[in-house]
Amino acid sequence: MPVSLSALNDASRDEFLAVLGDVFEHAPWVAEAAFARRPFATVIALHEAMLAALAALPAAPLTAFLNNHPDLAGRTARREPLTVDSAREQAGAGLDRLTAEETALLVQWNAQYRARFGFPFIICALRHTKDSIFTEFVRRLDGDAASERHTAIGEIARITALRLTRKIEGAGMPSVHGRLSTHLLDTTRGLPAAGVPIELYVLSADGSAALVAEAISNADGRTAAPLISGRPIPNGIYELRFSLDAYLSGAGFLDVVPIRFKIAEPEAHYHVPLLFTPWSYSTYRGS
Amino acid sequence: MPVSLSALNDASRDEFLAVLGDVFEHAPWVAEAAFARRPFATVIALHEAMLAALAALPAAPLTAFLNNHPDLAGRTARREPLTVDSAREQAGAGLDRLTAEETALLVQWNAQYRARFGFPFIICALRHTKDSIFTEFVRRLDGDAASERHTAIGEIARITALRLTRKIEGAGMPSVHGRLSTHLLDTTRGLPAAGVPIELYVLSADGSAALVAEAISNADGRTAAPLISGRPIPNGIYELRFSLDAYLSGAGFLDVVPIRFKIAEPEAHYHVPLLFTPWSYSTYRGS
Amino acid sequence: MPVSLSALNDASRDEFLAVLGDVFEHAPWVAEAAFARRPFATVIALHEAMLAALAALPAAPLTAFLNNHPDLAGRTARREPLTVDSAREQAGAGLDRLTAEETALLVQWNAQYRARFGFPFIICALRHTKDSIFTEFVRRLDGDAASERHTAIGEIARITALRLTRKIEGAGMPSVHGRLSTHLLDTTRGLPAAGVPIELYVLSADGSAALVAEAISNADGRTAAPLISGRPIPNGIYELRFSLDAYLSGAGFLDVVPIRFKIAEPEAHYHVPLLFTPWSYSTYRGS
Amino acid sequence: MPVSLSALNDASRDEFLAVLGDVFEHAPWVAEAAFARRPFATVIALHEAMLAALAALPAAPLTAFLNNHPDLAGRTARREPLTVDSAREQAGAGLDRLTAEETALLVQWNAQYRARFGFPFIICALRHTKDSIFTEFVRRLDGDAASERHTAIGEIARITALRLTRKIEGAGMPSVHGRLSTHLLDTTRGLPAAGVPIELYVLSADGSAALVAEAISNADGRTAAPLISGRPIPNGIYELRFSLDAYLSGAGFLDVVPIRFKIAEPEAHYHVPLLFTPWSYSTYRGS
Repeated sequence: MPVSLSALNDASRDEFLAVLGDVFEHAPWVAEAAFARRPFATVIALHEAMLAALAALPAAPLTAFLNNHPDLAGRTARREPLTVDSAREQAGAGLDRLTAEETALLVQWNAQYRARFGFPFIICALRHTKDSIFTEFVRRLDGDAASERHTAIGEIARITALRLTRKIEGAGMPSVHGRLSTHLLDTTRGLPAAGVPIELYVLSADGSAALVAEAISNADGRTAAPLISGRPIPNGIYELRFSLDAYLSGAGFLDVVPIRFKIAEPEAHYHVPLLFTPWSYSTYRGS
Repeated sequence: MPVSLSALNDASRDEFLAVLGDVFEHAPWVAEAAFARRPFATVIALHEAMLAALAALPAAPLTAFLNNHPDLAGRTARREPLTVDSAREQAGAGLDRLTAEETALLVQWNAQYRARFGFPFIICALRHTKDSIFTEFVRRLDGDAASERHTAIGEIARITALRLTRKIEGAGMPSVHGRLSTHLLDTTRGLPAAGVPIELYVLSADGSAALVAEAISNADGRTAAPLISGRPIPNGIYELRFSLDAYLSGAGFLDVVPIRFKIAEPEAHYHVPLLFTPWSYSTYRGS
Repeated sequence: MPVSLSALNDASRDEFLAVLGDVFEHAPWVAEAAFARRPFATVIALHEAMLAALAALPAAPLTAFLNNHPDLAGRTARREPLTVDSAREQAGAGLDRLTAEETALLVQWNAQYRARFGFPFIICALRHTKDSIFTEFVRRLDGDAASERHTAIGEIARITALRLTRKIEGAGMPSVHGRLSTHLLDTTRGLPAAGVPIELYVLSADGSAALVAEAISNADGRTAAPLISGRPIPNGIYELRFSLDAYLSGAGFLDVVPIRFKIAEPEAHYHVPLLFTPWSYSTYRGS
Repeated sequence: MPVSLSALNDASRDEFLAVLGDVFEHAPWVAEAAFARRPFATVIALHEAMLAALAALPAAPLTAFLNNHPDLAGRTARREPLTVDSAREQAGAGLDRLTAEETALLVQWNAQYRARFGFPFIICALRHTKDSIFTEFVRRLDGDAASERHTAIGEIARITALRLTRKIEGAGMPSVHGRLSTHLLDTTRGLPAAGVPIELYVLSADGSAALVAEAISNADGRTAAPLISGRPIPNGIYELRFSLDAYLSGAGFLDVVPIRFKIAEPEAHYHVPLLFTPWSYSTYRGS
């Protein structure tokens, strides 16, 4: 259950730290610094106060802070337990279901990254699929020290904004959630298409497809809730599958209509409608 | 190399039979009957003369003729060799690559069908995928004797029209070939899209996809030749995959665009264009 | 200013009649009959009570009541003044701007209709364009007496539901308003198109076009308010014109895009989006 | 009747000049110069030989040659008769149907242009509508002397290529003709739409529309001949009107579908299809 921002503004130091102490990984002092700057008019202002405390750190303690973050790795490769938040975030990106080869790669890259930059590879896992994490890791191994330090802090800002959004509710929330929605329109009748099964898959580079969401279109041709919402949409390639066969009763030449697309802005709204007849369809990124 | 119809009209009996004697399975007498009715103005007229000879058969010899057709079966299940034509036709539908289970099913259904109707299950394999043959087999096992006899002769008419079309060329050819074509239009520029890799897969009920054709779009946004032509398009579910990623240089949200559709008229022309921008596309059965 | 339903439920007889006495044309007794059946939970229930009073009339007084309705006619042809409501309603359909020929036609048809059915031609003018009124008039002149009596009462129900909707606000309002909206999507960019001038015209059979509404698309590609709302959409043929020329800066082959469509359900929501690139567009009735 | 290029290659000097003497306005010496360079493998080569003779002219005789071209003007403003070719070409652009105001404008601009550049305003009228000629005239009045001389010769090259194309046939014809075609696809049925009346209008800046072509769609959803072909498509704004009402039997919300577009490349192929259902349509520049 989220706590209200106004309650936090009025809370004791202990209560405040109980809620926010673990937002920054192993760094309750960040929340303490924010406590001293209350009250906050918005959740964004609270987050900015926490980031300001981090930005004030000299180089050496900042490196120490970065080093308190866990390696990105599969369960089997991990020696120390993750914090609850990190475990949830890494699992969301499929990092708890790695093959032996993938685990070995991550172990090797983690070592290379640490050797090169002096701290672990940090990424906001909730914004990524396993594929996009691997792509990013390869890209960032080639970065330079200054930009990687900058990137690491940017990723921590994203991670902590998402954690705050789970823990607090109030005015001025950070925009950290994306949304994926659809709409089915039967243009033969000029009406929404109800009762059509919809599946959303995330595709991997190895050709596999994992079911992410499923729904049945309602009388308005929409799904009761967005297919993805309340979180970033992980970067990756997705396929919506609309099972039109029953709806069309065998007329025409459509059966299951797959629509494949890339998500590259996890915080954006992707509206992906399907307009169809038994013999044609169109789709687009709408708004 | 096809022989010309006019050459056949002038040929000796031996030459005529050498070309057409095996069009009807193990029944050179059909070609002999046609020989007596020369000349033919069209290939269709020649085919009709052959079918008329068949239609004149009394019930018992017709049953014997039907029994000269091979069972539909995998290689391992077959005791007697196929004629060259039958082997080519059955292989085209994937019947030379059956699993053990599928082979067992066919063996069982062949026996049931023969027991029920007194002749083997006959189907024009070139018009079918493995999936659609299995579907048809189940459906026809439930038929009645008169309609199955009628259907068997209709399938033989299709098989022999296709064989004639391979062996002869001339006026009035039977319409036994379908065509599957595509066209890529980049509506951002109002121009055909060149250089886009295109793959055509046939999908199976088990979820597998087999590559049927591949091509690169040319300057007119088309393929040098139709993706399927010069034969019927086997009944089934297909997926065209257009790899737009390189063409779009990463702009927009499209990567590979899959278009899935059913073929239910193997002799028809299916034109399936893709009109796209980086953020939208549409397709339809065109003409 | 609308009066609230609850205020009417509590009002004195005089107050009640002051608001509702002229809802039915020259028939304050209808409101009086409703007064006796207070309170009303919904505006629909109030309207039904009024219609029930009308339905209870014997044939002769009903004919007298129908005869209290004005002829449909241009200003010049009218001998007695219209009630305020009737004048507003007839003007909305363009009946105050008739040509001499049109006026002559209406005068002739009014006479024919009265001679045939014994009461004037009654139609809910707010649901019609001049063209559709003329079409309806010709059609209904050919009707039979019973169905015309039925139709006249149905039209009065529509007229009075609309009048109630202007005078009262409260729970359970009658659904008497339609809505026409649009949406502009630039599929080259995958974003709404802002700043596009939009005009809505109603077309006449004589080829003329009258401007009904105009707007500029906003950042969401929509108009600040629906192009038509808060009233029925008159039956007729409309043309939306989207001036894309400035937005496209001369690229492509589009200039002004006209979209022409029929309205046949005045109380429905017509959503008519435009998806475009410089070289293509599509539209549909959406929801 | 066009003469063949090979006949011209073999013709006498008199015959050659009889065919080609008036291709360049009042300048049979151009054809004579080409006669000396026979034979020609292509019509383009013949045209280039003629243009080379022109290019070899010193400045003064070139100015005299340019001055042999007629003013662009309405019939009433003209003192000397046009050559047959010029009359046909100017009429094609509507210059024989000018209002008094338009005629006055042209007279004034002709005088300004001559005063400024020393020769008349020359334009290939077959590539233009009246509107685009007026736009070009205003633009070119502001040009500098060198570029106007260059433009005038370019326009004469276009005029004479078109004249050659009417008079000769043979290999290597100049590409001076455009083409406007359409295609009607009923995506509810996945089939071409036959029997739909199609009209093509050219629109003027004053809001008027002039019928250019009309046709009925055939069984393939196309017109028997392109709507425009065998000539350049005049620069301008056009509207195709598809009368779908009878085809759709009143279903849906479409009646006449207008498609408006700009032609800016008179020698190009514009294919403008309409894909429709009763409730939607799309169009694009195809190929």
